[in-house]
Amino acid sequence: MLIDVILIPSSAGDNTQTGQISVVVDILRATSTIVTALANQAHRVIPVLEPEEAFELKQKLGATDCILGGERKGFKIAGFDLGNSPCEYSKEKVAGKTIVLTTTNGTKAALWAEGASMVIFGSFLNMAAICNYIVTCPHDVTIVCAGRQGDLSLEDTACAGMIVSLIGSNYDLTDNAKAALFTFEKAGQIGLTSFVGQTQHGRYLREIGMESDIALCTDLNSIPVVPRLKDGDITILNF
Amino acid sequence: MLIDVILIPSSAGDNTQTGQISVVVDILRATSTIVTALANQAHRVIPVLEPEEAFELKQKLGATDCILGGERKGFKIAGFDLGNSPCEYSKEKVAGKTIVLTTTNGTKAALWAEGASMVIFGSFLNMAAICNYIVTCPHDVTIVCAGRQGDLSLEDTACAGMIVSLIGSNYDLTDNAKAALFTFEKAGQIGLTSFVGQTQHGRYLREIGMESDIALCTDLNSIPVVPRLKDGDITILNF
Repeated sequence: MLIDVILIPSSAGDNTQTGQISVVVDILRATSTIVTALANQAHRVIPVLEPEEAFELKQKLGATDCILGGERKGFKIAGFDLGNSPCEYSKEKVAGKTIVLTTTNGTKAALWAEGASMVIFGSFLNMAAICNYIVTCPHDVTIVCAGRQGDLSLEDTACAGMIVSLIGSNYDLTDNAKAALFTFEKAGQIGLTSFVGQTQHGRYLREIGMESDIALCTDLNSIPVVPRLKDGDITILNF
Repeated sequence: MLIDVILIPSSAGDNTQTGQISVVVDILRATSTIVTALANQAHRVIPVLEPEEAFELKQKLGATDCILGGERKGFKIAGFDLGNSPCEYSKEKVAGKTIVLTTTNGTKAALWAEGASMVIFGSFLNMAAICNYIVTCPHDVTIVCAGRQGDLSLEDTACAGMIVSLIGSNYDLTDNAKAALFTFEKAGQIGLTSFVGQTQHGRYLREIGMESDIALCTDLNSIPVVPRLKDGDITILNF
């Protein structure tokens, strides 16, 4: 079996990954937020590409049950209920609700991965949970890093590398998977929170006053859920 | 000043790098071959995308002075004079000649980088020479890894990381540059030749009987030339 890492989705062409497990990773902050929302009993998360789609969907689903979440340039979108910080997705706000989510890179990566037989969402928060799940499946694994507008994101690369480090001994590794592993090894030496704080996106979040999200998104193994995308909805996978 | 690494040219969109130094890297084997050919007194190397262009150019330039070199799937192209192994580009064969070169990834990366103010070619062979040159220039640096058909090549990443390691203290590093640096640090622990031999392309060269090229292409600092692309020709830069 093979483990591969897509470091930059725009480099990967069309998705032809049927028959595989895809793990979508966007540490800062989409997958950390999805994991948090579902752990706080959101009914489901629906990823969409554009704010316009989100507004239309809310109208269709009804305002009572539906929350619009997401960001552009890190900030809450005008007319939306929530931004893209995990701290906004508390039980009080999200329990029982459908969250329609659009973010700059994360929801794109999710929708790109949609062709795989199984699409799950990884972050440092649910690292143990996703690895425990993956090792039960006799399939090739592709970790899809959201990256950052056509570039690699070091925090996503490190998360992918941590998955490779934890489960990789059962798999052949591509060059991409090895590069991710080397990045994780470095992150492990520096410490996750410090490492993520020094990435380009980490520094950007500090600049716009959202530094506290860095610690939130590196709280390793704090949430034992595996989000799964199926038929357009992200819900908790029971296995 | 900033140092960036393009790990996968297909992810990078159009090249808008005017005003920068671009360093093109394709360890296995295009840039190693270019460096070797120029050190063995080839008059110039002309990179072209397709074999058809190479045949046309040879007809135009005259068969006496012109050699066609390159590969597809690692093998010499039918009707060409030489393949893509540095060992073929001896003084006896190339001195005074124009080499028209087309390779799967390397010549694409070279032509992609062409918009920069200064385009040079890096490899492990001429590592010291290119670093000595770069530090004399007060410009941002972009290292363009050829990669491998839309994926990262670990040997190119490690070479980019070695450049970052040697000169990076004078620059701000992007996430990509840091990821390359971490890969080089790992390569340094393992040993360059072993490390390159374990990459996907290294394993492929072994499979097709070209294992000896791996040692040839990791002979660090053995050739003190800096190839430069200008007006379509690659020649030795005197500085």
